[in-house]
Amino acid sequence: MAESIRLAASRPEAGVLAELQAVVGPEHVALDAQRLAAISRTTEPTSTLCRYAVFPGSASEVAQVMRIASRYGLPVWPFSRGNNWGYGTKNALNSGAIILMLERMNRIIEVNEALAYAVVEPGVTQQQLHEYLEAHHPKLIADCTDSTPLGSVLGNAIERGYGYSPAGDHFAHLCGLEVVLPSGELLRTGGAGARCPTFHTHKWGSGPSLEGLFSQGNLGVVVSGGIWLSPRPERIVLFTLDLEARQLTRAVDVLHQLALEGTVQGHVHMANAFQTLSLIERYPASAREAGRPLTADELATSRRTFGIPEWNAIGGLFGTQRQVRARRRDLARAVREVGTVSFFEASQVDQVTRLLRWSAGGGPLSWVARAIKSVMTPKDVKLVSLLPEMFGLLHGKPTWRVLQSAYFKSAVTPAPTDLDPARDGCGLMWLAPAVPMTGAHAQTILGLVEPLFAKFAINLSACLTMMSARTVFLLLGIFFDPQNRDERARADALYGALSSMLAEHGYQQYRGGVSAWAHGNPNRDLAGAQLLGQLKAAIDPSNVLAPGRYHT
Amino acid sequence: MAESIRLAASRPEAGVLAELQAVVGPEHVALDAQRLAAISRTTEPTSTLCRYAVFPGSASEVAQVMRIASRYGLPVWPFSRGNNWGYGTKNALNSGAIILMLERMNRIIEVNEALAYAVVEPGVTQQQLHEYLEAHHPKLIADCTDSTPLGSVLGNAIERGYGYSPAGDHFAHLCGLEVVLPSGELLRTGGAGARCPTFHTHKWGSGPSLEGLFSQGNLGVVVSGGIWLSPRPERIVLFTLDLEARQLTRAVDVLHQLALEGTVQGHVHMANAFQTLSLIERYPASAREAGRPLTADELATSRRTFGIPEWNAIGGLFGTQRQVRARRRDLARAVREVGTVSFFEASQVDQVTRLLRWSAGGGPLSWVARAIKSVMTPKDVKLVSLLPEMFGLLHGKPTWRVLQSAYFKSAVTPAPTDLDPARDGCGLMWLAPAVPMTGAHAQTILGLVEPLFAKFAINLSACLTMMSARTVFLLLGIFFDPQNRDERARADALYGALSSMLAEHGYQQYRGGVSAWAHGNPNRDLAGAQLLGQLKAAIDPSNVLAPGRYHT
Repeated sequence: MAESIRLAASRPEAGVLAELQAVVGPEHVALDAQRLAAISRTTEPTSTLCRYAVFPGSASEVAQVMRIASRYGLPVWPFSRGNNWGYGTKNALNSGAIILMLERMNRIIEVNEALAYAVVEPGVTQQQLHEYLEAHHPKLIADCTDSTPLGSVLGNAIERGYGYSPAGDHFAHLCGLEVVLPSGELLRTGGAGARCPTFHTHKWGSGPSLEGLFSQGNLGVVVSGGIWLSPRPERIVLFTLDLEARQLTRAVDVLHQLALEGTVQGHVHMANAFQTLSLIERYPASAREAGRPLTADELATSRRTFGIPEWNAIGGLFGTQRQVRARRRDLARAVREVGTVSFFEASQVDQVTRLLRWSAGGGPLSWVARAIKSVMTPKDVKLVSLLPEMFGLLHGKPTWRVLQSAYFKSAVTPAPTDLDPARDGCGLMWLAPAVPMTGAHAQTILGLVEPLFAKFAINLSACLTMMSARTVFLLLGIFFDPQNRDERARADALYGALSSMLAEHGYQQYRGGVSAWAHGNPNRDLAGAQLLGQLKAAIDPSNVLAPGRYHT
Repeated sequence: MAESIRLAASRPEAGVLAELQAVVGPEHVALDAQRLAAISRTTEPTSTLCRYAVFPGSASEVAQVMRIASRYGLPVWPFSRGNNWGYGTKNALNSGAIILMLERMNRIIEVNEALAYAVVEPGVTQQQLHEYLEAHHPKLIADCTDSTPLGSVLGNAIERGYGYSPAGDHFAHLCGLEVVLPSGELLRTGGAGARCPTFHTHKWGSGPSLEGLFSQGNLGVVVSGGIWLSPRPERIVLFTLDLEARQLTRAVDVLHQLALEGTVQGHVHMANAFQTLSLIERYPASAREAGRPLTADELATSRRTFGIPEWNAIGGLFGTQRQVRARRRDLARAVREVGTVSFFEASQVDQVTRLLRWSAGGGPLSWVARAIKSVMTPKDVKLVSLLPEMFGLLHGKPTWRVLQSAYFKSAVTPAPTDLDPARDGCGLMWLAPAVPMTGAHAQTILGLVEPLFAKFAINLSACLTMMSARTVFLLLGIFFDPQNRDERARADALYGALSSMLAEHGYQQYRGGVSAWAHGNPNRDLAGAQLLGQLKAAIDPSNVLAPGRYHT
């Protein structure tokens, strides 16, 4: 780090700096070492330090910055909001890059209520879009992730993030991007120039479809995009499915069939007990200080205390009153012998919400627990307290609640609505292979990752998330205490071992971050990589736009 | 034409010919003028003649052909089966090209029943896949188009064709392509090399998504692809909605809402009376011979005779028994005051089928008509005879029935299962702008195209097809008698006028053919066109793969 700070401070770069400042205004270029160090913080074992952070206010300014960077041959790494904790936050692959923060570009350019889409800039957050729709278009909802409310809608969609509702495949719901190329030119996906009436309604456009090129890549800076919204469904029901470990295989198969037939439309999340525990409890201080994993006994005790099943699936049913009733019956029938299913309608969630409020206000907890048990299978109040937040997520209402898990192994207690795991020194890496959605495939991949977590003495945090009816992502969380040098090294080594093992077995990670790109990728299609390389060389001859991102 | 035939026959090209013959075998290179003329036939007013037609048997042979073509600088135009009547059939943009017919590559490489996908080569037809699934995987169905049963599954999906069921956006259901690049190299989309378990289950893959590049383009020859199938739904109901012209706007709005909320899942087709008439009747010989359009009176008489509504929507409801019941009620309620809705369950379709068979066997037609009227609103037997075929389409069963409309203005009576409108001298061009799915947008585009059809004295054949909840394609059919020089010229001029008008108003055509590429495309995004040009130059430096296709 010290080397990089020196680099940023001492090199005679008056030219480039003055040009950048002239474009965006001096107040929108971060220079001082302390601020740059803060921007460069991550939750990963290693990090890189940026040279400057530039905050453009418009697509035109982005274009000018790209032209300057090309001229000086300086790498530029764009981030929408940069809140990808566990995927590299605002880190470039190497130190010394210009970080392009798009957070000031936060206009909601259009909401088309009849056609159910919004056009947003990359700085628009999940919370901002949610509030805007509530205020101006209450008939529409935007799917959201369970990460920070301050995450970028567009950035997440470009990185192919996912949510909970039928609109939860965010990249599939992007339609019509404006992209600044490394040359500074503005490209519109879809093939048509301005005024095309289907720019934000017909994803494939005409001719070769270019949108895919600008997701998970380094070929352009997306400066605005259409995202499809959903009419607020007449009825949403949340369901949970409690599973013993031996039931998981069957549950994956049954949910797969239910998704294929259309009964389950959304993105069911199936978390193991450790992951669920990270949502509601803190890691025992003694174990944290010792840098050791929770023992099977400790986990079993926690599971009993909080009523956490070995695996816990959560999902939603969406539609008209009639259709949700039919889905609920079809689902109940299909999972009857698979696990313990519970359904939560809005009225029950309201009841739980009132009880929790009352309890927070000093109502006797035991009474609350009893009352809650009257509406659901026996679970601790702490676990039940997730219910209103998860129900909100199904309605596109962002929450800080799930992000709390990033603090699981931290000594810091975050404020409920001001979480920043990088700032607060949490240690967390995500790694998520895509897996065909059958029970057998799920068992195979779990059998491959479990021994590696055990080998490096870190508990397996796992969530199988349905991306589609045919694919689940196994979201693996590596929680560690970055203050503990040994554990940090084990976390790093575990990531490397997982990464190599997955490549060896042919799996791909659904998305990557700097940690992924720092490792080689022996699992790439060579002709595809070469084609991307040729395209990159043609449109970014100075190789300045996020060089090495996704290995290109 | 004469010029081109001379070109193919006289130039000293022993070298290239010998090389091509050595690769695929002399029996798989078509040379003689008569055969080449037959291959080059189209239904359009103008056509181009190929130099040779080469029929490779494998991806490796395709690669070798591409290498030879690159070396000699000879254009190569690949076609899967080339049955795109109205979109150019097997025509290159200019005469003298090598036509690469992929019909011998007709292996069904894999059907994964658990994950519900098939992997097919480009020569696999809709009929072939349908029969294979019926025989070996009766639980699965493949969505199909209403064009010829001999159409290519893969070719249609790459060109972004559509069908009727929830899996009817064929490109959206492609997953995992193998592509021979102009260099002869084999590229796999999805980013991963061989052995990736999600190659055919996770469409976006990892890193920039390349699939879009190889649809509607000229950057590679797709030699195999995964296509997602559907588990056969427990219940499928066909619905029709009879509309007066004044009701169309409202119907589009209501269907749009029903699609957004998920009640209507498939691709509803809304045809005007002329298009429906083309399915069940022949154009009056006197009008054909005079090269004149049907008058309003003649159309009205036909509509009365056959019970054809001014606009007729047809679609399907798919799912479990319970869910289809719910959808049917929700739909019925929503369209109650929009038009006349009818639902057809399997049992009713069976009844109609039996009656039609009996009538074909000599049963008294009036009795059949009466019996049919007991199950549906008053319609002529000829119109009703479409019902079993349309019901089959909802189940992925291809039919020759709809293609008969291509013979509407022809003097030829086709055999029921051997239709080839190009061979049989029919005149037909398709042109289909993408339009945002609101009633107002539908009215606007109809208001723009109607006067042009009138101006060139050709009846408007129109079908609004829902591509998604947000976009309809207005499929315009230009039917003409190619023997009639004046009418042929009017058809050509009408195409040009429509094409210019659409570009002027910013519309894009959802797909194109040689007629589209022969016209300029003032409506392109310049930066996107330039990027495609750079990519094309990098990977096809000799510019031999379908030069000019989709204007690249």
